[in-house]
Amino acid sequence: MTQQTRAHDIPLGVAVIGTGRMGADHVRRLAEATRGARVTAVVDVDAGRARAAAALAPGCTPYTDAAAAMAAEDVDAVLVASPGPAHEAALLQALAHDLPVLCEKPLTPDAAAALRIVEAEARLGRRRVQVGFMRRYDEEYRQLKALLDAGGLGRPLMLHCVHRNASTPPGFTDRMLLEDSAVHEIDATRWLLGQEITAVRVLRPAPSPAAPEGLGDPQLVLLETAAGAVVDVEVFVNCGFGYQVRCEAVCERGSVRIGEERGPAVAADGRWGGPVPQDFLTRFRAAYDREVQEWVDATRRGTCTGPSSWDGYAAAAVCEAAVRAQETGGRVEVALAERPALYDEAG
Amino acid sequence: MTQQTRAHDIPLGVAVIGTGRMGADHVRRLAEATRGARVTAVVDVDAGRARAAAALAPGCTPYTDAAAAMAAEDVDAVLVASPGPAHEAALLQALAHDLPVLCEKPLTPDAAAALRIVEAEARLGRRRVQVGFMRRYDEEYRQLKALLDAGGLGRPLMLHCVHRNASTPPGFTDRMLLEDSAVHEIDATRWLLGQEITAVRVLRPAPSPAAPEGLGDPQLVLLETAAGAVVDVEVFVNCGFGYQVRCEAVCERGSVRIGEERGPAVAADGRWGGPVPQDFLTRFRAAYDREVQEWVDATRRGTCTGPSSWDGYAAAAVCEAAVRAQETGGRVEVALAERPALYDEAG
Amino acid sequence: MTQQTRAHDIPLGVAVIGTGRMGADHVRRLAEATRGARVTAVVDVDAGRARAAAALAPGCTPYTDAAAAMAAEDVDAVLVASPGPAHEAALLQALAHDLPVLCEKPLTPDAAAALRIVEAEARLGRRRVQVGFMRRYDEEYRQLKALLDAGGLGRPLMLHCVHRNASTPPGFTDRMLLEDSAVHEIDATRWLLGQEITAVRVLRPAPSPAAPEGLGDPQLVLLETAAGAVVDVEVFVNCGFGYQVRCEAVCERGSVRIGEERGPAVAADGRWGGPVPQDFLTRFRAAYDREVQEWVDATRRGTCTGPSSWDGYAAAAVCEAAVRAQETGGRVEVALAERPALYDEAG
Amino acid sequence: MTQQTRAHDIPLGVAVIGTGRMGADHVRRLAEATRGARVTAVVDVDAGRARAAAALAPGCTPYTDAAAAMAAEDVDAVLVASPGPAHEAALLQALAHDLPVLCEKPLTPDAAAALRIVEAEARLGRRRVQVGFMRRYDEEYRQLKALLDAGGLGRPLMLHCVHRNASTPPGFTDRMLLEDSAVHEIDATRWLLGQEITAVRVLRPAPSPAAPEGLGDPQLVLLETAAGAVVDVEVFVNCGFGYQVRCEAVCERGSVRIGEERGPAVAADGRWGGPVPQDFLTRFRAAYDREVQEWVDATRRGTCTGPSSWDGYAAAAVCEAAVRAQETGGRVEVALAERPALYDEAG
Repeated sequence: MTQQTRAHDIPLGVAVIGTGRMGADHVRRLAEATRGARVTAVVDVDAGRARAAAALAPGCTPYTDAAAAMAAEDVDAVLVASPGPAHEAALLQALAHDLPVLCEKPLTPDAAAALRIVEAEARLGRRRVQVGFMRRYDEEYRQLKALLDAGGLGRPLMLHCVHRNASTPPGFTDRMLLEDSAVHEIDATRWLLGQEITAVRVLRPAPSPAAPEGLGDPQLVLLETAAGAVVDVEVFVNCGFGYQVRCEAVCERGSVRIGEERGPAVAADGRWGGPVPQDFLTRFRAAYDREVQEWVDATRRGTCTGPSSWDGYAAAAVCEAAVRAQETGGRVEVALAERPALYDEAG
Repeated sequence: MTQQTRAHDIPLGVAVIGTGRMGADHVRRLAEATRGARVTAVVDVDAGRARAAAALAPGCTPYTDAAAAMAAEDVDAVLVASPGPAHEAALLQALAHDLPVLCEKPLTPDAAAALRIVEAEARLGRRRVQVGFMRRYDEEYRQLKALLDAGGLGRPLMLHCVHRNASTPPGFTDRMLLEDSAVHEIDATRWLLGQEITAVRVLRPAPSPAAPEGLGDPQLVLLETAAGAVVDVEVFVNCGFGYQVRCEAVCERGSVRIGEERGPAVAADGRWGGPVPQDFLTRFRAAYDREVQEWVDATRRGTCTGPSSWDGYAAAAVCEAAVRAQETGGRVEVALAERPALYDEAG
Repeated sequence: MTQQTRAHDIPLGVAVIGTGRMGADHVRRLAEATRGARVTAVVDVDAGRARAAAALAPGCTPYTDAAAAMAAEDVDAVLVASPGPAHEAALLQALAHDLPVLCEKPLTPDAAAALRIVEAEARLGRRRVQVGFMRRYDEEYRQLKALLDAGGLGRPLMLHCVHRNASTPPGFTDRMLLEDSAVHEIDATRWLLGQEITAVRVLRPAPSPAAPEGLGDPQLVLLETAAGAVVDVEVFVNCGFGYQVRCEAVCERGSVRIGEERGPAVAADGRWGGPVPQDFLTRFRAAYDREVQEWVDATRRGTCTGPSSWDGYAAAAVCEAAVRAQETGGRVEVALAERPALYDEAG
Repeated sequence: MTQQTRAHDIPLGVAVIGTGRMGADHVRRLAEATRGARVTAVVDVDAGRARAAAALAPGCTPYTDAAAAMAAEDVDAVLVASPGPAHEAALLQALAHDLPVLCEKPLTPDAAAALRIVEAEARLGRRRVQVGFMRRYDEEYRQLKALLDAGGLGRPLMLHCVHRNASTPPGFTDRMLLEDSAVHEIDATRWLLGQEITAVRVLRPAPSPAAPEGLGDPQLVLLETAAGAVVDVEVFVNCGFGYQVRCEAVCERGSVRIGEERGPAVAADGRWGGPVPQDFLTRFRAAYDREVQEWVDATRRGTCTGPSSWDGYAAAAVCEAAVRAQETGGRVEVALAERPALYDEAG
């Protein structure tokens, strides 16, 4: 091979912060399934885990300190995959270094912190942060949005959403059911409809016996949007049989459904059908690949696209209202700060 | 053919009261598609319409007065298909004659009148009234109920229902959206889950421009049941594209969906798919046939099965609560009278 | 109930000849699920079996001799469900009595005998025989035929057919795979396309280990029609997983598929899907009901519709060619007698 | 960004030979959608077209002579997308330069030429050639193969295949229907079943009026394999409504189907369903992307995987037999040369 390369061939050097399940998966993705990037740094407070992750990517340096990684010469951009409470510090550091960031959801666990990120980025005066709402990168969600935007079906009036996991890890709480699970439908609603969510209700059926002590599962989250659409979201995170994400948009002149079962149809053993995916990484693998690829591509072009800090903030604000609705059983309105002009084109 | 017949061959003589669209359809059904019955009388306040309907069934006598028809020697049973407000009088007359009745839904428009029927039948001491909730006779609904009753999927936690009509006739109101449309899902919920409905909410999205002045369409009806299940029902009666009724039961260990599109799958003109039925008589034709046949069969055996007066009363009571929920935007609890012992086996 | 009945209420008295599985099922059907008929006679060479079947229908007389039954005053029509080799005698007797007949397929096992029936009926000068090709009474097959006849898709060019049984009874042979199984697709091809079949090939894959000794299973039957359509039929009668019948019609401007899986869709135990029917009586129950009802209705009107003796003969002739094709591996042309004018409107 | 890169970051320099529709699409794919490669040369006998294609990829040199391109220092591998008759020369040149090649199907139009490539590669002693049978890279085909290889369904007994195009370009012939269209199912059969094809028949229905003069369309291609499986392939290249590729594998204990319609399901305008893709580049876009990516990845690792020259040769030999079968109407056996040991692991 030739030794000569040109500027357009220089890959983006990415520091991955946090090397748990999602972080390690992103290291692998950047090293093996992304064009135009390489992982030059990994950061984990656990030095052993950092070294193990660094071994996945040739030429990658392990760090235990994010600031040191961000200061390294070969770090051009940051992917934040640490636990949610650590996001604010990492994001503010990245903004201080003026580095592009792909931040796994949630932007931050609470709306106040998320608003501080929004404000810091607004002061910087240019978008630097993309939030990891991967459904915006899923082929079917994109086709759904294209159908809605094309206008032939008229205005969307309702969304019916289903979000099911086979089971939850230990320690999963009512709050996480909203912040970790429903948050995806909250973002998808804002994105698909191009409207803010204005009020939330949460209905709680008698829980499944498979739900761990203290978790009400399933729950029905009801959203109202600025233009009067109504959205219902079944969140059932211990459904037992697999991972299912479905969405139906009911419009003035038609309805569209995505998330139907697909893949080879087998007839055997007296039944027809097929397997239900057991895992979100399986269901949304291609979406994650595309999310990271589009982030790398945009970053190398010097731009920032995809879900913004504002989207992360708005999702956090809706989640906070949903937590209160979950506690009170009533309808809770969502209070949003004023949106900086920087985000007028967002989304 | 032989002239000799035996008692088991003597067909049931049915008086059909009301000869509008549903009534005329039932005359035709009894005359042409039912085993063991014949229409011996039709009743309509409009004498011309009564004569026209009588002409559909050989040997049938037209009446303008229900009492006269019920007194006729060749009338063994009554099918009530008159407008809802006329039901109470016809039902009380039939009970006074101790005649078996199949009454099109609603039993009566309001719960108080329905309760009077329940009480009259309880005084009579035996079930005489079957209410025309035809979904209980639909093959797919029956399969769904069989799956739920078999218990393999565990207890039902939620139902997601969709009820769509292409368009509404002139004069259709918010109240009719509940009493004529949602009432089917109200009965189906009670039947599928074997529980009473205890509370109702109605959410109202910004209406479709296809909705006539004064009608909020679509609406989202939310039901709670005695054992804590939660049911959401999209009612969209001017959806434009056809008639769709779907139901998904979400249980502890699995989910079941009915009402998916079926029939021949065509690929042509750049698209795959098929027609959406335009009409409930098309979608539920076989269910209506089976409903009337099972009523005739049970009546000839001297029994009464199927949805009872109590079911009609309970549906009316839930509808009344739903109307108040529709008006107030809040959660309205359903108040039911005590159920007479006669109905302990009902359903 | 009134004691008075009129002529139009007099049920058709049917003699059922043969009381094996299909015969007993037809006795039950006529007694319980058919309008306007009653079983007045059952015939079986096994007197005990005849008595047992007679007990299923009130007022029914058991016979061991078909001629005696046909001579009885209360027998208006005959349903032949005896083994195929006994059909010719029963049919000729019925024609001699000028009685309407519904004859289970095959009309007769061999084409020569079938032609004798055709000739006897042609001499009688009016159609008296309907052959039990029940697919013509299946809702989906009727919708498919309606779509083809409507012409919007253009001329049919090919059919792809699948015919699968879970397993075969003992003694099932290569020949029965054609005469008992493929014969349905042979009739369906003639009926859907409105053309005679002109040539046959049979391809024999290496057999499944589930096939009994001496049976090549599956086989691929290839038909050519008078207007040049080509039809492939997979017949797999020990597929193990259930009963499936599918058909795709490929036309000049589009394709139509019937026989897709239907019924409630369950997600549970890590899989989506549903049960495959295990039995043709399950899959085609409604078609059998309709077949017998339409035969009763037509007979009471004094007419004869549905698949004719000619259809039974043509199917037998194609089967004979197919047997030779199966034996030789080559293409075998179908030789048909000239069609009597009586059958010009048949079908 | 850092200026330093390491060996594993040096992209593969690819020369694309032929810049027609497929060639230009591959230039775009390598430049924009592939990791670890760049287009350093494009070759077309039309200098203007070469210059236009070169403009799609930064740093790419246009050539009119393949030999000159292959001799260039920055060319590490060759993608052949020229017309079929030009493949042999390009492939032999590439083998002479010991360059890895991805060759669009067909390897060569005739089996004799294909065998010369096989022999040249065998003399070289290592696999250098991958043939562009992209179905092997399609997600659904891979899932089907995995299900077959897993063995739970038993041995495959039959395949039912459908291959439909909306329409053909001018000049499309009977022979092209086999060599350009059916060849995909020929390769898929060999790959899915892991067996050579031993005999071919071609049945020709009366053609569609949409078929151009001289083209028999559709046709039914029947394949037999070494272990006795039977495969039917409908090829219908002027079906009018879109691009459809389906496959059902019928095994001893079950059946698997791929290629069913997917994507958002829309209900609107009185119909349910969705669009049929109009183009193979749409349907198989992801498969092409993966094919080229896996070729690049394997090449950079110094290996060669995927369909081999032998696969290209065997497909050509089956096509030649199919052409004779098409002409004669009979069964034609496939004669294959002895397979060099080099290909023992192929596929």
